[in-house]
Amino acid sequence: MIGAMKAYHTLVACAALLAASPLAAQRSEYVTPGDVIAKAAAEEWVAIAPADLMVMDLAPDARGKPRRVVIQLMPAPLSQGWVGNIRKLVAARWYDGISVNRVQDNYVVQWGDASEKKALPDGLETVGEECYVLAYGLPCPFDASVDADKVMSSEADIPSAGDNPPVFAPVQPPKPWLDYGDAYRATIDFKQGWPMAFGFGKAARPENWPVHCYGMVGVGRNLSPDTGTGAELYTVIGHAPRHLDRNIALVGRVIKGIEHLSSLPRGTGTLGFYENADERVPILSVRMGDEVTDLPAFQYLSTESTSFAAYADARANRRDDFFIVPAGGADICNIPVPIRVAP
Amino acid sequence: MIGAMKAYHTLVACAALLAASPLAAQRSEYVTPGDVIAKAAAEEWVAIAPADLMVMDLAPDARGKPRRVVIQLMPAPLSQGWVGNIRKLVAARWYDGISVNRVQDNYVVQWGDASEKKALPDGLETVGEECYVLAYGLPCPFDASVDADKVMSSEADIPSAGDNPPVFAPVQPPKPWLDYGDAYRATIDFKQGWPMAFGFGKAARPENWPVHCYGMVGVGRNLSPDTGTGAELYTVIGHAPRHLDRNIALVGRVIKGIEHLSSLPRGTGTLGFYENADERVPILSVRMGDEVTDLPAFQYLSTESTSFAAYADARANRRDDFFIVPAGGADICNIPVPIRVAP
Repeated sequence: MIGAMKAYHTLVACAALLAASPLAAQRSEYVTPGDVIAKAAAEEWVAIAPADLMVMDLAPDARGKPRRVVIQLMPAPLSQGWVGNIRKLVAARWYDGISVNRVQDNYVVQWGDASEKKALPDGLETVGEECYVLAYGLPCPFDASVDADKVMSSEADIPSAGDNPPVFAPVQPPKPWLDYGDAYRATIDFKQGWPMAFGFGKAARPENWPVHCYGMVGVGRNLSPDTGTGAELYTVIGHAPRHLDRNIALVGRVIKGIEHLSSLPRGTGTLGFYENADERVPILSVRMGDEVTDLPAFQYLSTESTSFAAYADARANRRDDFFIVPAGGADICNIPVPIRVAP
Repeated sequence: MIGAMKAYHTLVACAALLAASPLAAQRSEYVTPGDVIAKAAAEEWVAIAPADLMVMDLAPDARGKPRRVVIQLMPAPLSQGWVGNIRKLVAARWYDGISVNRVQDNYVVQWGDASEKKALPDGLETVGEECYVLAYGLPCPFDASVDADKVMSSEADIPSAGDNPPVFAPVQPPKPWLDYGDAYRATIDFKQGWPMAFGFGKAARPENWPVHCYGMVGVGRNLSPDTGTGAELYTVIGHAPRHLDRNIALVGRVIKGIEHLSSLPRGTGTLGFYENADERVPILSVRMGDEVTDLPAFQYLSTESTSFAAYADARANRRDDFFIVPAGGADICNIPVPIRVAP
């Protein structure tokens, strides 16, 4: 067994934030996911605007080390009602002083106002459930003049990719992941750097929705028809709870520092809530990225790029020395979109 | 937003160890996964023999609390070469005094001998790669007299469920999960309480293999053809890394105490290895369950039972008040086999 720990290093990692493999330069004959990322052209990387980042500073850990979590908010046209609320909550400094109150193993970390008494700022939008998805011909917010029950009864009613920009039909090759299948009966795809699903909803209308992969950030809510404001948020720290898709708003993803949330002690109360107030982790401040002076510049690998398709293929068919049988497929949540600090 | 935290309690949890929902009694008109578990008949629960459990005691945490992890070893005919080695390593007390050396976010926690100098006990088996799967007509250990290249060229060559017990063909209804699909191009099923895949391997032979769900325990190894001894082990603490299936031996799963591993600080070295020796978490002792006096009696819900089929359906089609759109499917790793302490 001597050497096993070192050899295990060759196993290319499934991490929320993928860095170029340190072995890539030495083993250029292999096409690992890390190789593909390292070789991607500069123009395949897309800058993430600092104004779309939310920087959450937790209280320092027991050793006094700072704990910063960086969250990328979802771009238009997805979930913009809640994203707008979140921007207002940051501007009002409402999140400053709240806490992480729930850590449930293999599920979520959740933060909010444990007192449930902190007044919300004025002007927050009440977003409708129709906005959990982008549905063909069904506006969000809902427009009462639209016949929402008009059934899409034939394939001819399904739009092509260009007909209705908010809904994309996943038809453009090469997208190896379109062949992988999905246990949740959706067609999976990526759009503007985000994992997305395509399927059929109300009145058989084609619709898109974001999916609950590791690190995605969503909005806690009460029972339907409540949809939450954005004051209470959670992130996924386990196997993708895809049953939450279309049932709760996703608004972003953690792109740096998720380990500060995922490694917190699990709560011992119901559903992982902390039972004692002193277990809660204080959130010192939440600022938008363009308010923070020492934030690096982040980029994501364009999901429409040639390199991203090659990267997905390399994740589904591992070719480095460690692997003896390629899977021939991969779950959408096991193809995390590469994100890096700009070189 | 007042009440949001409380209301979120109604969200039925995706946890490695499912307990009966505390809300089940109040809302009997719904069939939640927790309801199904609570109503399962006593005879649908199967006792886990203490001799098949491995009890790993880590050093107490910073507050002095004990940290016990209970691992269920995989039953015959799966992975028995490695399982036999693990039993020998426990008997030799070899694991006592080793440590957790690697914690990689959204991937694995790994433990072994950080010095890489501790001598292994005599009598460990070198297991062949053919034993990563149960392949029709291909014995494990490999039998040189068998024509491993004889191709299964027609459906007629594929065995029925009863022809070759080690390989099961997933054909017996009702098994709702057979309709859910799998991104890894396998047919997914459960056997003897374990998540399993069915597909075709060498020479198109039908084969079964266990899958890398959250909490599964596997054997670290060097590059092929090494398969590891069992002296170095890991468990999954993130989204199922199914690309490891058939590439590395799975030998069990954590059935209690995974939070003591999943909440450890992430290592800052390559692939999550701890960079400093003082970050490692000492393993005080590892004993078999029948050597430990204060261990509760564990049971799993038979995966061949009517209640398990209903439970899987309830996980794929959530019916409680929180959900507005059922998924209609579920990933095999999002249908964790219910395990409980015997009432």
